This record gives sequence, C-alpha cells and structure tokens, in this order.
Amino acid sequence: MDLGITDRVRPLIEAVRDMVENEIAPLDAEFHAEVGTHPSGDRFKHTDRQLEILDGLKAKAKERGLWNFWLTDSDRGYGLSTVEYAYLAEEMGKVTIAAEVFNCNAPDTGNMEVLERYGEEWMKDRWLVPLLNGDIRSAYVMTEPDVASSDAAQLAFEARRDGDDYVLNGDKWWISGAGDPRCGLYIVMACTDPDAPKHQRHTMFVMDADTPGIEVLRAMQVFGADDAPHGHMHLRFTNVRIPAKNIVLGEGRGFEVAQGRLGPGRIHHCMRAIGQAEKALELMCTRGLSREAFGKPIAELGANYDIIANARMEIEMARLLCLKAAWMMDSAGVRAAQPWISKIKVIAPLMAGKVIDEAMQLHGAKGISQDMTLAHMWTHVRTLRFADGPDAVHRRQVARAELRKYTQANV
Amino acid sequence: MDLGITDRVRPLIEAVRDMVENEIAPLDAEFHAEVGTHPSGDRFKHTDRQLEILDGLKAKAKERGLWNFWLTDSDRGYGLSTVEYAYLAEEMGKVTIAAEVFNCNAPDTGNMEVLERYGEEWMKDRWLVPLLNGDIRSAYVMTEPDVASSDAAQLAFEARRDGDDYVLNGDKWWISGAGDPRCGLYIVMACTDPDAPKHQRHTMFVMDADTPGIEVLRAMQVFGADDAPHGHMHLRFTNVRIPAKNIVLGEGRGFEVAQGRLGPGRIHHCMRAIGQAEKALELMCTRGLSREAFGKPIAELGANYDIIANARMEIEMARLLCLKAAWMMDSAGVRAAQPWISKIKVIAPLMAGKVIDEAMQLHGAKGISQDMTLAHMWTHVRTLRFADGPDAVHRRQVARAELRKYTQANV
Amino acid sequence: MDLGITDRVRPLIEAVRDMVENEIAPLDAEFHAEVGTHPSGDRFKHTDRQLEILDGLKAKAKERGLWNFWLTDSDRGYGLSTVEYAYLAEEMGKVTIAAEVFNCNAPDTGNMEVLERYGEEWMKDRWLVPLLNGDIRSAYVMTEPDVASSDAAQLAFEARRDGDDYVLNGDKWWISGAGDPRCGLYIVMACTDPDAPKHQRHTMFVMDADTPGIEVLRAMQVFGADDAPHGHMHLRFTNVRIPAKNIVLGEGRGFEVAQGRLGPGRIHHCMRAIGQAEKALELMCTRGLSREAFGKPIAELGANYDIIANARMEIEMARLLCLKAAWMMDSAGVRAAQPWISKIKVIAPLMAGKVIDEAMQLHGAKGISQDMTLAHMWTHVRTLRFADGPDAVHRRQVARAELRKYTQANV
Amino acid sequence: MDLGITDRVRPLIEAVRDMVENEIAPLDAEFHAEVGTHPSGDRFKHTDRQLEILDGLKAKAKERGLWNFWLTDSDRGYGLSTVEYAYLAEEMGKVTIAAEVFNCNAPDTGNMEVLERYGEEWMKDRWLVPLLNGDIRSAYVMTEPDVASSDAAQLAFEARRDGDDYVLNGDKWWISGAGDPRCGLYIVMACTDPDAPKHQRHTMFVMDADTPGIEVLRAMQVFGADDAPHGHMHLRFTNVRIPAKNIVLGEGRGFEVAQGRLGPGRIHHCMRAIGQAEKALELMCTRGLSREAFGKPIAELGANYDIIANARMEIEMARLLCLKAAWMMDSAGVRAAQPWISKIKVIAPLMAGKVIDEAMQLHGAKGISQDMTLAHMWTHVRTLRFADGPDAVHRRQVARAELRKYTQANV
Repeated sequence: MDLGITDRVRPLIEAVRDMVENEIAPLDAEFHAEVGTHPSGDRFKHTDRQLEILDGLKAKAKERGLWNFWLTDSDRGYGLSTVEYAYLAEEMGKVTIAAEVFNCNAPDTGNMEVLERYGEEWMKDRWLVPLLNGDIRSAYVMTEPDVASSDAAQLAFEARRDGDDYVLNGDKWWISGAGDPRCGLYIVMACTDPDAPKHQRHTMFVMDADTPGIEVLRAMQVFGADDAPHGHMHLRFTNVRIPAKNIVLGEGRGFEVAQGRLGPGRIHHCMRAIGQAEKALELMCTRGLSREAFGKPIAELGANYDIIANARMEIEMARLLCLKAAWMMDSAGVRAAQPWISKIKVIAPLMAGKVIDEAMQLHGAKGISQDMTLAHMWTHVRTLRFADGPDAVHRRQVARAELRKYTQANV
Repeated sequence: MDLGITDRVRPLIEAVRDMVENEIAPLDAEFHAEVGTHPSGDRFKHTDRQLEILDGLKAKAKERGLWNFWLTDSDRGYGLSTVEYAYLAEEMGKVTIAAEVFNCNAPDTGNMEVLERYGEEWMKDRWLVPLLNGDIRSAYVMTEPDVASSDAAQLAFEARRDGDDYVLNGDKWWISGAGDPRCGLYIVMACTDPDAPKHQRHTMFVMDADTPGIEVLRAMQVFGADDAPHGHMHLRFTNVRIPAKNIVLGEGRGFEVAQGRLGPGRIHHCMRAIGQAEKALELMCTRGLSREAFGKPIAELGANYDIIANARMEIEMARLLCLKAAWMMDSAGVRAAQPWISKIKVIAPLMAGKVIDEAMQLHGAKGISQDMTLAHMWTHVRTLRFADGPDAVHRRQVARAELRKYTQANV
Repeated sequence: MDLGITDRVRPLIEAVRDMVENEIAPLDAEFHAEVGTHPSGDRFKHTDRQLEILDGLKAKAKERGLWNFWLTDSDRGYGLSTVEYAYLAEEMGKVTIAAEVFNCNAPDTGNMEVLERYGEEWMKDRWLVPLLNGDIRSAYVMTEPDVASSDAAQLAFEARRDGDDYVLNGDKWWISGAGDPRCGLYIVMACTDPDAPKHQRHTMFVMDADTPGIEVLRAMQVFGADDAPHGHMHLRFTNVRIPAKNIVLGEGRGFEVAQGRLGPGRIHHCMRAIGQAEKALELMCTRGLSREAFGKPIAELGANYDIIANARMEIEMARLLCLKAAWMMDSAGVRAAQPWISKIKVIAPLMAGKVIDEAMQLHGAKGISQDMTLAHMWTHVRTLRFADGPDAVHRRQVARAELRKYTQANV
Repeated sequence: MDLGITDRVRPLIEAVRDMVENEIAPLDAEFHAEVGTHPSGDRFKHTDRQLEILDGLKAKAKERGLWNFWLTDSDRGYGLSTVEYAYLAEEMGKVTIAAEVFNCNAPDTGNMEVLERYGEEWMKDRWLVPLLNGDIRSAYVMTEPDVASSDAAQLAFEARRDGDDYVLNGDKWWISGAGDPRCGLYIVMACTDPDAPKHQRHTMFVMDADTPGIEVLRAMQVFGADDAPHGHMHLRFTNVRIPAKNIVLGEGRGFEVAQGRLGPGRIHHCMRAIGQAEKALELMCTRGLSREAFGKPIAELGANYDIIANARMEIEMARLLCLKAAWMMDSAGVRAAQPWISKIKVIAPLMAGKVIDEAMQLHGAKGISQDMTLAHMWTHVRTLRFADGPDAVHRRQVARAELRKYTQANV
C-alpha cells in the first residue's frame, strides 16, 4: 500500500506547485476582481482580461505538458494512478482558478470520464476531444429543486420517448458551470420509466448546451455569491427534443453511469479541500509569527499552539485517508473503494472547514475580508458537505458497510 | 434572580414578534433584492423603494410605541431592564432589518448610549435627539488595519492638539454603518498621547460624518458581501480638524468610554444571535417534517432527532446564560457583569453558528442559497466571533476572573 | 422565573457547605479506606469506624436541622422548592458520603417520595418513618439483565397472582444500595400482565428486603469498583411471596409510579454532578496556580486559560438549565417539566465528565490516583449517562417535544 | 511509503490474531479473576493458576516462534520494520495479557531496547538475555511525585558520586511493573549534576530490583485499580549504593537514553490502543445487531449509524497516522520521526477513548461492568494521555515543528 509520492509524479508536483504559486496565484485575485465588469453588464460573460488570463495560463500549462493529469489509469497522457493524481489535486486546490488551468476542474473531469468510459465514438468526437483540449466546458445536470438528492431514485425530471427522439421536461438546479458561455455539453439525468425498479428508472443523456427549449431561470447563490461566470444555474427544460442515440450506455442505466462518475470526482474534491486546509495552515503560521499583541507574536498567545497542532494533525489524517481511498480505487476498483470514498467525503470538507475557520479567527476581521482568500475557501468547502451526497448519506454508507461484516442479511 | 418574562414586557414581546413576523419579514427579502439597483449605480444609496420600506415600517413602529426599547434603566421610554430588553432583542434578531425598524440596531444603540451617558448637552442636542428619533444614523470608528484589536492599547490613529483644535490622521476600517448616506455622526477613538500609561493614551471624539478630510477608501467585504448600503467602510482621515470641545468625557479617557459602551451592546448582539438560532431551529423542524426521503420525513432519518435535541438544549443554555449576564448588568453594574458578558460573547455566536449550520445541512443546497435566510445568518454570526473582541480575548477574561478567586496577586 | 438563591435557603446552603467542607470531607477518605477491612472479610459490612463516622455525622446534621431537605413542596420539614433544594444538592455532590449525612441520598429520596406520594398509611408507618429518620436504607428494584432499559415496557420479571398473594420470579441487577446491611425496603417493579397495553403491564410492589426467596448473586462492578458496602447487586427472586396489599397505587400502574419517582431524582443527580464539576474546576485552578513547569505556573501554559474558561462557561450553563428544570417542576409539575428534565439529564453528566477529565489531565497521573477524588468522580458521572435513562432516550424525548410544536400528529 | 501489510508479516499477523482470539482471550478473564486470591493475602503475588496461565501461553508462543517481534531492524529474530510490527501490536492490544505472552509488553520492550542499543556487554548478559527469554521482568524508574513530568529537567531524585559508587536517594512513583515479583531490573533516571545545562543534569543507571535500600511505599491506583500483580509502585530509595559502571551511555546522558527509549514505545502503545478501539467497534456492532428495543435492532435506532460510521472513520485515520509515524521511524530515524510520534501520541488515546466510550454507551450498564472488557479498556487508554508525556506537551512539539518551517529562529 504505497501512499507516497512516486518518482514519476514528483517532478510534476513540483512543476504544478511552482506554477500555482508563482504564476496562477498572482492572477487569481485579478481574475475575480474582473467579475461583473463586462461592458454588457452581463456577469456571465468573461471580460477580455479574464479570457486573457485563463487562456494565457492554459497555454503555458499545455505547452509544459501540465495538462489532463486526471486521466488516471489510461493510455493517454501520463497514466497516473489516483494516488499520484491526488498529490497534484492538492496543489491545484490552493488557488481557485488553478484546476481549470491544468484542465483538471470539476465538473469537466467527471464529464470527460463519462464520455471516456461510457461514450460512443461519435460522442467522443463531438465533445470529448474539445473538452480534453480545453476548448469547451460542460455541465452535469442532475439535481432537482423538489427532490431530496440523498434519495436520487425520486428524481422526476421527465424524458418521454417520442418516435426516434426523447422529449425532456422539467426543472434542474445547481447546474454548476452552466453559466459559462464556453459550456458546450450537458449530461442530463432523466426519468424514463417511473414504474421501473428503483435503480432502473433513470437514463443519462448527452446534448449540446444550446439545444432549443433550455432556459436559464436564474443563477443560484452560494452564500450570496453567484460564482459568475461559472455559475450554478437553475434550468428549465420545455419540450427539449433529442435523438435516442444521445443516450449514454442504455435506457435505465442512468444510475450506473452516475455511480461510475462520482467516485474519482469525490476524491479530487477532497484532495483540493486538503490543499486549501494546507494553505490555511500556512497563513495561520505566517500570521501567527508576524503579528504581535501584548508584546508577543500571537502564535504564542492563548491556545494558538494547540490550534496549530490540531490543524496539522487533522490535515495529515485526512490526507492519509484520502490517499488510502485513492489507493483502493487504483487497486480494487470503484465499487470496493466506495466505503472509503464515503469516509473521505465526510472527513475532508469537515476538516478543511475547521482549519480554515481557525485561520480566519487568527486573522481577525481581515480573515473574512476580500484581502484574503480564506472567506471564499470557507464557504466553498462548506458546499462540499452537500455536493455529491450529504454527510448523512455517506455516514450511512460507512455504517452499513461496517455492519455488513457481521451479517449477511441486508442491513 | 428573576430571568423570566415580566408582565410589563410580555405585551411588548408579543407586539414586536407579531410585527417582525407579519410585517417586517415579508419585506425583508424585497429590501435586500433592491440593493445595488439605485439608478446612479451607487450601491451605497438607498433606492426609493428601500426608503419607503424602512420609513414605512419605522413610522408604524413609532406610532405603536415600539421604539427605542434599548434605553434600559432610564426615565425616558419604557425604562426596561436589560433582562426585559433581551427578550425583545431576540425577536428582533430574527429578521435582518427588524432592529432598525424599532430604532434598536447596532451601532446606533451603543453610540446613543455614549451620548446619553457621557455626552455634553450640546452633543445630545446635535446628535442624540435625531438618533433617538431615527432621523440620522451613526458609526463607531475604532478598528485599525495594522493593529490587533485584541490589544487595543496599540491603536495608533493620531489626534494631535493644535490650538483649540485637534487634528486627526490615520486609517480606520470595518466602520459599520459608514456607508449609509443617512450616517450623520462618527464617534472616533484616537491616540492623543502614545507615551501615557496604557489605558490613558486614547481619547474619544464626536464629529459630523461629513467633516472635511474624511475619505471612504473602499467597502470591506464580509464573506464577499459589502452589506450595502449599511457598509463596513475603510476610512482615511487626512488632517481632519475638530474643536477640542468634541472630546467625550475628557482627554485620555477613551478606554473608559469604550468599556462603558460595549457591555450592553455585546448582550444585544448575543440575544439577536439567539433569535437567529431559534429561527434556524424552527426552519429545521418544519423542513424535517415536510420533506421526505426513503419514504419518511427526513426528521426521522439518521441522527436528526439528536441534532434537533442538541440544538434545543444549546439554545436554552445560551439564552439562560445571556439572561444571567443581563441580570448581572441590571443588578450589579457593567463592571461586575464583565466576566458574564465575556462568557456569553463566546457562547452565543458559537452556538448560533452551530445550530444554523445544522439547519443548512438539513436543507441541502437550498439552505445556502438566496431562497433562505440561513446563509446570511451563518456568515453574520461568524463575524460576531471577532466583533467587540475575539473569542480568545473573552476566554482569557473569564479564566483570569476565575483564577482571581484563588489569589489576590494580579494573575 | 426566579432561579436565584432565596433568603430562606441561603443560610442552609452556608451551613451545608461549611459542614461538607470542614466536617464531612476530612472523613470521606477515611470512610472509603475502611472498605473491605471488616474482620469477617465481608466487603458488604460496615466496619465499626465506618458506622461511627456515618452515624456521628448524621447525628450532627440532624441536631442542626440539616436533614431531609429533599422533601420539597411539603408541609413537613423546610418545604423548600426544587430550585432551592438544587443549590443544596450541588453542595452535597462535592463529597461522596455527604448526601447520606443529610439523609438526601439516592435511591432513598426517590423511594421516600414514592411512599410519601403514593403509599398507604401502613406502608408509611413501616418504611417511610424509619427512612425519614435515617434508620434504614432502601433499594429500587427495576433494571433487568436481558432487557434494554430504554424500552422499559419489555421488563419481564414476573409477579403472578396467587390467592391473596403475588409470587415473584426473575433476575434484577444494578440494584444500588442492596448491598448495604441497613437496607430494609425493596420497591420492585414487576410484570403482572404481559398482554396488557404497553404501559399497563407492570405493577410496583413494596416489601422487606429480607423477604424469603431473594438471593444476592453478585455485586456488579462499576469500572472495576463494587462500591461496597452500598453495592449494585444482582438479585434473583425465586418464588418470593408477598401479600397483594403491598401493591403501590394499583395493579398495572407501575409506570405511573416510576415516572413520578424519576423526575426530581434526575434533577438531584444533575445538581450533584454540577457540584462535582465545581469541585473539579476548583482543583484545576489551585493546581494550575501552585504547580510550576518551565518556570511558570502551569495555569499559564498551553491552552489552560481556555480550558479553565470553557469549564466555567459550561458549568454556568448547565447549572442554569438545571435550575430552570427545577423551576418548571415547581411551577408546572413533573409532566410539563419532563422535556426539561431530559435536557439536563443529557447535559449535566456530559459537562461534568468533561470538566473532571480536564482537571485530571492538568494534575497528571496524580489526578487519576487514590490521592485525589477526581478519578472516582469521573467514573461516577459516567454512570449517570445510563442511570435513569441513557442519553439517547432523553435526546429523543427532547426532539419529540420540539417537533410536536409543529404538528399535532403523534410524531 | 508502503504502509501496508507485507507478505512477510501477514502470516505472523494471522498467527497472532488467532492465538489472541482463541487461546489468550478465553483465559484473560480468569487471569484477572485470580488477582488478590493468593493464599498469603498479598495481591502482588501471582497465584499458581496465574503463573500456569502465563507460562503456558508463553511457552506456546515461543514454541511457535511468535516471540520478541518488537526487535525491529535487528539481526536477531524477525527483523521486522516498525510498520510491520505495528500491525502485530494492534492485535496484541485487544486482550490485556496478550502482549506479555509474546514478550512484547511495556515497559519491558523499552527497557530491552535501552540495553540492546546502549548497554555494555555485561549488562546485556545480566539482564537482556533473561528479559529476551521472558524469565524476568523490568521497570523503568523515572517519574517523581513533586515534579511536573512535562518538564523533565526538573527531576530531582539524586545520585551522588561516592568513590567508585553512586548513592541514590529520593522518591519515584508510578513505577509500572515494580509490583511484579518477577521484576529483576530497574532502569533509573537520577540527577547527577543539578547545575549542569538542562539536558545534561541526569544520568541513567541499571540495577537489580532487589538492591538494598529500595522500599515499596505503596501501590498507586489507576481509577481505583492497583493493577496487581504488575502494579504501579511508589518507591523510596534510601542510600542505595551502586557501582559507577552501572551507568548507561555516560554521566549526564540520561536524556539521550530516555529520548531513544521513548520513540518506539509510544508507537507501540498507540497501536495497541487502536487494537482496543477496533475491539470496541466490533462489540458495538455485534451488540447493535443482536439487542432489540422498540422492535428494532438498536443499531438502527437514534444516531447509532452515525456513531458507528464515525468510529470507523476515526480508527482508520488514527491507524494510518500511526503507520506513517512508524514508517518515519523506519525510514528517517527516531529524531525525524519525533513530531510524528507526538501526533499519534495525542490522537490514538483520544480516539480510542471516544470509540470505547460510545461502545460502553451502546451496551448500557453492562458495558461498564465486569462482564465486559470495555471499562478496563476505557480507563487504560485514559492513562495514555499522561504516560510518556501529556497531550499538551506533544501538541506543543507539533506546533513548534510546524512553526519552525517558517523561521530559522528557535521558536
């Protein structure tokens, strides 16, 4: 169970870390400051400067071969293991736009995996190639307003067969990336047979984002932020018609696709969250050493040593757990790795939230202001406690796996 | 130690609760949706509709005699005790604009207390009367960018005597309410003698907000929000000249004024936070009973019973502690109440943050969206862990008071 | 809602505190050191010196009128309110044998309440009078080995009608006080009709402890201690025959008696636990000020200020919550007080366990040794998380009461 | 960084697990039940049956080659890595007497390491050989009653040079294993030069346990238990005379020896604690599945799924952290591993205490009784939060190591 940094990935980590720190981080604040300044007044359009920043960085990354690392266990690209990739994801988590610079950002990586793993050739040609190239973006269209996502079998958005087509109707919300004008692909989960057994009711479709009949109702806000121009959109589908060939894997196999998609993505999210916790601890230490009160560096005041020590211990444990989940994925496959993914999915966002919270507290009001990245990190990792399954569902998975050791009956 | 609801305050609580729920809450979302839509493009101007909402509600409240409750232990108004007021503050905490509707909002109440308690007659005429009337707003100008607020003796913003005047220079930030165009008064803490003993270095000044030489550099953001039009402004004073008679209480007595000001204000903040926790628990329960997953109301799933029970228990304990701090203030004065104020200052925001967090979690993504008030509540109570002294400073006060019981030596 | 110390109870608190500190505490260690030294080798016999200590102290207490305070809301004795008594219970909690010295110890107080409230005259003459006088002790015989106590309707110990008698058969365990040779009364819950509705299956009986057919199988150990000579005995009843007139209140009304009995007792346990937490905090502070490491009192090292502050805050909150539960009992009766009793039943032992744990940690190994009372306090408060209902059951009660506010349906 | 189970150690783990479960566990309760039944009345003598049990099991273990695994990185025996040994220690932690059966118990392993690493040949012949053979036991004599162990430089027990001898005077307490009549060796830390620099004041001596002048004052109790016949003794040295050649490594090098000794021992303690947590989780699950209340297995009630899931997650994280500390020791040496050892020294006992606590709670009163091993496990892991350095000291080490990354100055 080698959870360490391999010789193969070590130089990549260094190159990525260097680029994140020295080239991406300095532009990150500028990128965000540009949001909402497009001459049209449309927050969901990139300004010229934003595109210049993004495209410039992406070009550099691609030129250096720092691109598409997430393609694990593959003939294309580096063929890294999930463990190896995890170390890279951690570095990319430290700055918000970094993951996209290396074409390793959610939800595109998950969507590319769907195409890579389950897509037909024509689908790959049409969407996977430009996605791998960084030319378009994509969205994963699953969550519905009136349904507890924890019980996905309830999803009711309808796809009705009509001749050689399917006709889609219903609302979807929290569709991340659907605000981005570069978004070219929607992968949509729809109910094709409400009377089928629970996990055979749904089907996964692929379609162009500009298919007629899709309307953006509004941008959902995350703690007051619309995350423009990426966005988390509330979409309405009205008689959206697509050919039956746009089905992925087969009718009624939507759950199968969704499960396969979520494993690696959850690990990536977690490793990026760990990267944010590392960043927060670094900020806590440098502030603690440089700021003084009562004639001492504040690191030496009150419980700050304990706070720093606890942060370090919790980060290490979460990282090791995440690496073990990655190793399970590499060595035993997604299905066997599921309880491990559930574990880290609960732990990493909780841990990161706690460490970032302490880092904010040590910075005083500055820590929650626009002068630091901590506030955004904090609200972002909070969203991870819902995204891809709320904590309660993952804890339930872990408990069931545990109890199953003692009984063959379905607990 | 009567911590209960008195006969005198009971009808006031009912009237306030009723108005908050039925008249203010329905307009609150509309008020916030108007932010940033002023034709001038200036986010720090109220729209006509915003003023209409505010002024309309304020007129109703005043007409019903629901006004200036915070004037505790006073001949004017109700002369409520702090315990009695605490119950009202709790109700007002449930909706963001409610406190202002009853002229009971921070920082105005604290500023009015300064004038009421320490101000000269001309100061009262000029600023207290219109403040009590709700005609102007005010700001308290204390925090500085480069100084740990926990060690306030370090505050370096300078007021230099020059003939009959003082000349003020320096930066202040997080000046809440200084964005509001109705803000007419600044109460400013400045260093008049850096070589004096630690708690005699600073002096409190009052001045018109539009005194020449004061510049708004920018609006500080709180988790990405500028809280316009109220605002938390970064101000720069450049040779701001004010007459010596604008000193409150006397040169070198700034700390004395600051201490007297903060006691009640901290309790009010805490009771409003408890009101928010109550609101969050209510939302948790109603959602838990109405939303279903796996064929059951989600209240019955997983650990939700425990989560609800813990929330209820922690709210009750925090409320009782807050009421006891209020009772100490009423019966033994601010100084004796200080360790009790420190206790609740630590507990209430932590507790409220936890309860609101659980309420968000139970709502899924909706809980952090613009469709609920939970997200704003959560980031708001988080700021209370810095405002008026960070947790660490208050814990230190509590510990020192405890150890002092066992030693006369200065611990 | 007066939760304070009344003028009536203030001198009693002082007298009790003084006697606990200066007369009982110095003999407590000696009492415990005598355990197991009876010449017969029988750990469940008091040595002469133990009886001398106990009887001597009891005589003094009685002489001073410090006796039977627990008789709240009664014509006999002081007629204290539960709130008033709570302050006394706190003082008595600080030393293990103190409660008995004032004839206020569990399970006798609960048993006396049963007799006082539900007993017939002959029962009072036979058992209540000597109990009130401190001449005999008693035990409450409810818990069974094979049944989850949280679901008391499952209790299966059998009482079968046979003519004018009932014949009892079955095992009971954790019968506290049944080891004490002075124990004269058993109050026994037995199933008289397994087919009756859930809460009418059981009946409460009173009987002499030496009724033939009752066998002590063994002493249950609490973290390795048998708590001799008090003891928590495992009893076996074999054809134990008692007259039908020994039924309390009526056949099938066992639950009613049990509920009435448990309310005040739980509050008393909680207040004593709070007394132990206060004692632990005192020990923490005096040790923190007197012991040095690295040239400083250890109170000033690491996170100790925060630990002390947290202990103080949590004690205050638990005490206020407990007083409110007591006040509910006084003002609205046991039934209305139930959710409040559940709240404090969860909170007080958890809080006390935490504070005592920190106090032990600050003392190093000495804290867990026979040289301090902390170790015994810690294991004792741990047992309170099961006794009279496990935390989970009380949390469930609190949650149900909360949800009931929003629905009339039986949640 | 291979943290997995190697092919070499896998069969050993299986053999040890099998022997622990099937041969040692069934005799463990009997061994403990014999304590205090020696005909002489001396609790610190083994009964014949106790010796029969221990010697019988040890003979079997030795015969099967399951012996002295702890000799890591050595030519003798298996030469396991610390990572490999950690997996074995986990298994041995599950039953109290198991570690001794395989000659892998504290404090003997640490003492043997001292002799192996720093001892002269004659010392090895005299004490190491019989220790390796399991013929004698040993004690490590360091802790003093009046000194904060966290600041070991304060240790004042005196060794005064007198000709070719040293004369030792003073008290030592918590000397584990000194109660065992088989104890043949004391390794004693004494102050030889109170005026020397802080870490050169002390010297380590070896001596026979029956050296004249050593008196056992009493057995220290751990939560009321004397852990006879092993014991944690309070010793008094009065003019104990030993030759100067009994010094280990050199005068003034006591700290060096102590540091070298403690690294591996702490990891072993932690892995055994993790084994206890695993055992507790197993008991929690089997009870949760077999016990019913309200018509359901209690595992399905309340928050039990979450409790089980949290236990599983925390065990996994602690194990991984412990394995990483072991790997650091193997790959980079004790000194580089120190901050990692401090981390796991804080985490493992806390985690195990929490998991065992939950397991007890799920069992109700049975969980804290003599019918289960949980109560003893719980108090035992609690002692680990002091043993070999209290949590606060280890947290301080972790924080200092963290801050050192940002400054070369001695933090």
